[in-house]
This record gives sequence, C-alpha cells and structure tokens, in this order.
Amino acid sequence: MSSGLAGVVAGSSAICQCADGLTYRGYAIEELASLASFEEVAHLLLVGHLPNQAQLESFKTQLQQYRELPMGVKKTLRALGSGHPMDILKAGVVALGCMEAESLDFSDQYDKALQILGSLPSILLYWHHYHKHGKEISLQDHTSTAHFILERLRGQEPLWVEVKAMDAMLILYAEHGFSASTFASRISASTLSDLHSCVATGIGTLKGRLHGGANEWAIQLMLEYSSVEEALKGITKRLASKEKIMGFGHRLYKIADPRSAVGLELAQKLKGLGDPKLFDIALAIKDHMQKEKNLPDNIDFFGGLVYHYLKLPRLYYTPLFVMSRVAGWIAHVFEQRADNKIIRPNSDYTGPARCSFKPIA
Amino acid sequence: MSSGLAGVVAGSSAICQCADGLTYRGYAIEELASLASFEEVAHLLLVGHLPNQAQLESFKTQLQQYRELPMGVKKTLRALGSGHPMDILKAGVVALGCMEAESLDFSDQYDKALQILGSLPSILLYWHHYHKHGKEISLQDHTSTAHFILERLRGQEPLWVEVKAMDAMLILYAEHGFSASTFASRISASTLSDLHSCVATGIGTLKGRLHGGANEWAIQLMLEYSSVEEALKGITKRLASKEKIMGFGHRLYKIADPRSAVGLELAQKLKGLGDPKLFDIALAIKDHMQKEKNLPDNIDFFGGLVYHYLKLPRLYYTPLFVMSRVAGWIAHVFEQRADNKIIRPNSDYTGPARCSFKPIA
Repeated sequence: MSSGLAGVVAGSSAICQCADGLTYRGYAIEELASLASFEEVAHLLLVGHLPNQAQLESFKTQLQQYRELPMGVKKTLRALGSGHPMDILKAGVVALGCMEAESLDFSDQYDKALQILGSLPSILLYWHHYHKHGKEISLQDHTSTAHFILERLRGQEPLWVEVKAMDAMLILYAEHGFSASTFASRISASTLSDLHSCVATGIGTLKGRLHGGANEWAIQLMLEYSSVEEALKGITKRLASKEKIMGFGHRLYKIADPRSAVGLELAQKLKGLGDPKLFDIALAIKDHMQKEKNLPDNIDFFGGLVYHYLKLPRLYYTPLFVMSRVAGWIAHVFEQRADNKIIRPNSDYTGPARCSFKPIA
Repeated sequence: MSSGLAGVVAGSSAICQCADGLTYRGYAIEELASLASFEEVAHLLLVGHLPNQAQLESFKTQLQQYRELPMGVKKTLRALGSGHPMDILKAGVVALGCMEAESLDFSDQYDKALQILGSLPSILLYWHHYHKHGKEISLQDHTSTAHFILERLRGQEPLWVEVKAMDAMLILYAEHGFSASTFASRISASTLSDLHSCVATGIGTLKGRLHGGANEWAIQLMLEYSSVEEALKGITKRLASKEKIMGFGHRLYKIADPRSAVGLELAQKLKGLGDPKLFDIALAIKDHMQKEKNLPDNIDFFGGLVYHYLKLPRLYYTPLFVMSRVAGWIAHVFEQRADNKIIRPNSDYTGPARCSFKPIA
C-alpha cells in the first residue's frame, strides 16, 4: 500500500492557499491572471510581495540579462544531442549548477534564483534551434518572459492577445502548494542541498504523466475527434472501457479547479486563431465528464487547448510548465530553508522475517 | 513550522527494516557486510532475493558491460568542465536518460537499472581523469564494483583487505528505508516519471550536508586534531558553543546505528594502512559524545575514517554513497511503481488573508 499522503498535512506554508479558491500570497488567481504579468507574479512568489514600478523594472532587467547562457551550458546542450525536452531542461539546470554554483551559506540564493528563472526559456530555445535547425540563436531579450518564449520559439513577432494569453498561462501554472514536484523539491532543500539540485528534482518529478504531462494528453484527445458528436461517442466508449481521461479530477478540487474557468476563457479568446471547432469539442467533453462522472476539468484540459491555439509544439507543454512553476518551487525552497528540518518519514515494514545469510560457495 | 514528517508513516515497504537492527529484505546488515559482495546485495535489493552462482555471474557481467559509457555521455562530461562531483554524477545520469531513455511502459526498467548501476562509477572516474589529468581512461572492467572503483581511481591494484572494506562500505550504504533521498525518489516515481529522473532526484537530495555529506565533515573534524587530548579539548569547546558535531545522532536510532559497529571494525582493520592515531582520536570522540551528549555515532562517523584509510578524495565520499544507495533508490522506485498512487500531501496555510490586486500603473 502506498498512501500517497492524501489529506496528510506535511508542513505549513504561507505561499499558496488551494482551498476555497486559489490564492498566491493572498491574491486570487483570477485577478492575477487577468491583471498581472508573469514577472509581477514571480516577484510576488519569490520576494513575498508585489513589486512597485521600479522593482518590477529591475526584476525584468535581471531576467533579461540572465537569458544569456554561460558558454559551458551551451557546450553541454550541444553535446547532449537529442533527448526528451524535460531532460534537456534538467541537464541545462544541472550544468548551470556546475558552472554557477550557489554558495554553501545560500547568501546568493536570490541571485541564483533569478538566473535559473531567466535561463530556463533560453535552455529550451537554444537547444531547440541548435538541434532542429543547426543554428545558434541570439538570446538577447528586451521583452517579457511570455513574449520571449513565443517570439524566439516561433520566429516571428507574436500578437498582443497571444502574449497576454501566454502570460496568463505562466501565471496559472506558477504555484500550487505541496504538489508532488514542489514537495519533492522541498525534500531536496531539507537536506540543505543547493538550489539547482532542488529545481532539478522539481523537473524530474513534474515529468511524470500523472503530474506535468496531462495537458499534452488532453489536447491529443481533442484532436482525435472531428466533431462534437464524434467526441461524445468516443468519450462514452472510453468511459465504458474504464479508460482514464486526462485533464479531469484533482485531489484538491472536488467541485472545480479555480484555474479551469480562466483557461476556458483564454481558449475562447484564442479560438479564432486556430480551429474553433476544437473549442466546441472541448466544451462538450467537459460537460459530458461533469454529467456522467461528476468529474470537473482541471487546468490541464483547457490549458492544453490554449497552447495548441498558440501553435506551440505539444512536447513543450510540460517544459513551459517548468518555466512557470520554477517560481513556485524556488519560493518553497526559500521557505523550507528559513525554518528547516530534514523531511524524513517512516515506513511500515511488510517484508520477510529475519533470515540468515548463507554464502553461495 | 516544518514538521519534517518525523515519525509519520508515509507508506509501506518490504525492502528494509530499520527498527530493532537493520535488515535488507530480512538479512541483517552485519552478515551482509561481512559475508556478501555488493553485487549480491544489489541483486537482493533490485530483484528481491539473493542470486545463485549463475545469476550472480550474469549480474556481474551485465554491470561490467555497462561500465562503458555511450559517446554522448562522454561528450557531455567533457563539455561540463569543473563542477561539484555530485552535480557531475547527476549530469551523467541525466545525459544517460537523454540517450538511453526508459520506455514509457517501464518494460525495460530492470535493464535500465543495471545500466545506471554499472555507469555511475564510470561517470565519476571518466570525468575525474579527463578533467584532472586530461586523459580518457579505459572503462573496461572484469572485476567487482568495489575493485573497479579503487583500482581505476587510484591507478594501482588495490589490496584484498581494501577491496573487502570497500565492498562492505557499499553494502552498508546501499539502503535505508524512507531516507530523504529515497522518499524524494519515490515521489518522482509516483508521478510515473522515468528511472533516470528518479535517480537524479535521489542524487540532488543526497547532496545536502544533512544527508550525504556528513562523512566528509566527520573526517575533517578528526583531521583537525593531532592527539586524543587535543581532540577531547576541542570537542568540549565545540559542544560548549552549541556547535553541531557531524556523524552523531540519527532520527531512527536513539541508542545505536547498527551500521556503526561494522564501520568501526572496518576502520580498525585498515588503520595500519594510514595514521593509526586517527582511529584512537575517533574512538575518543565517540566515547565523549556518548558520555556528554548521550548521542551515539552514526555510520558517517567511522565511515569517513574508512574512506580516509582507503585514500579516497574527500569530495568523493558522497558520490561513493550514490554508487551504493542507487540500488536502494531503484528498488524503491520499482516498489512504488508496482502499487502506485501519486504522493501529494497538503499544507497548512499560514499566509496573508485574501487581498485585492491593484495594477501598478
């Protein structure tokens, strides 16, 4: 039996409240997603309060400066060749940790945090263009994280509505309490390991399809159907054969994932940029799942559709999750360090009774 | 407040029993350390039972074949340059995961496990000689893990007593229930992430000085003193100023760490190969800590001294821990996968009350 610690309180945190709506340090996710930029939210998470204008400018400038990668990181990304983009991100952060190690007393933790936050999009983008097109792109940036990702990945100036949607997506995914990846990062932090190691733990844990990968599966499902009728027939069949439908249900939200309505609205705003029928199919599946299984959709369901309308490669949905959630992971590492106790539970022993060793010979 | 999950049962496991002595799948650690080889113990942990002669031969042959690293891993290690050896090991495993990815249904998990187990010593040794001496060493191996590490790191045939001690050390460190690194690996596994990611999580968590690094600190402490009298005076002073002495106390063992007596015996057997006075100093510190603080020494205390007598670089003590504990991590990943539920606890919210967002402008 693996309990999964469901419902177990494993510690306290001042960062995020997931019950009765979702707030980051007291601010409702709906307001942040529609009114703030990702940089304001990252500042809120990492520093503990929203920035004023000057603080925001300085924060953005630092991120822009950290888009440039140390030569050794570029060399490592070139040496890696192909690989799952989540592993590439992980390798990039590990290489950064080799070259730009955090000091043992953590006195430079905030600066290292900004470097990781600034570098993650660059790691993916640099590797992407080097391995797909054999060219080294410039990592110079004078814009926002959302703009930088869209522009440098797709090779053309994005529309304002696209940047706005990307910003909102980064905000929606930035933090979610003791999620598996965050809790694992906190365990790495609790041994007093360095920030790069904690982030690598987060990436490796988010990679699993029960955590980060759900939005990839959700859009794949929608794309299988060419009409609402076909989708409803298909889903009914899948449910009958007890198939798990990704993008529905969440351990914390039995009634509704507060991020879902925001995701739905974003998809609706963008549907004219792609195939609007997909939006109708998604809506129909959502209603069907609610009616038949009493399962609400979670952020990954419409989130996948938003990324699809933004014309982002499906394999990069989870890496984009990383670029956003890293702000939450690091906020939790800082919090863990501020009042640390090593996280080390017990287990119930279910193995064989004591036996005596007999040498082979 | 960060509870650290102390005393909380976070799941069940058939691998290791840490109460009332220490057993791996029912076998007492004392018997395994004195009678078995690391390969037998790794087989016991990974497969679930001890190997017979043919199984052991085949297991050893597979590890020997996996000592050779894929070219891409070598390239990555060359590109990385300098770095903390724990980060190098992590980068090596991540690179291996890029090039030799586990299949999504985990059907090749055992083969990937053997490759990781076989590769870890090679990753460190290849990198060590490339960056310290500018040369690429051969990774061909016809011996045991213990022999391979000693011979290839020190560049000469090790003594039998040294190989025996190294084997015992690898066995002592191979598994320890829900230790922080193991539990973090299980969380990575619980999202259905791949084996390489789970192992990278283990390495990043073990790196912290509250977990893997203690044996480095223990030997550093011993080396500061040139006599028993000086050591006792020094420790008394440190205790008076409330300094934490590494290598003492353990959350699970209030009376004695069952591995400690084995470590002490190993150090005693090896003391003639180095400075025997260090052994006396260690014994005196051990007795003093017991008498003054009622704190028993843990495996890291005499473990550090054993590695010192084996003339291993101090910075490699924790990487050697990885090469051994990886067997335990992977056994836990297999166990987690066999009856999986995502590990996702709750947190108590201690942050600000809900507030409303005011745009900067």
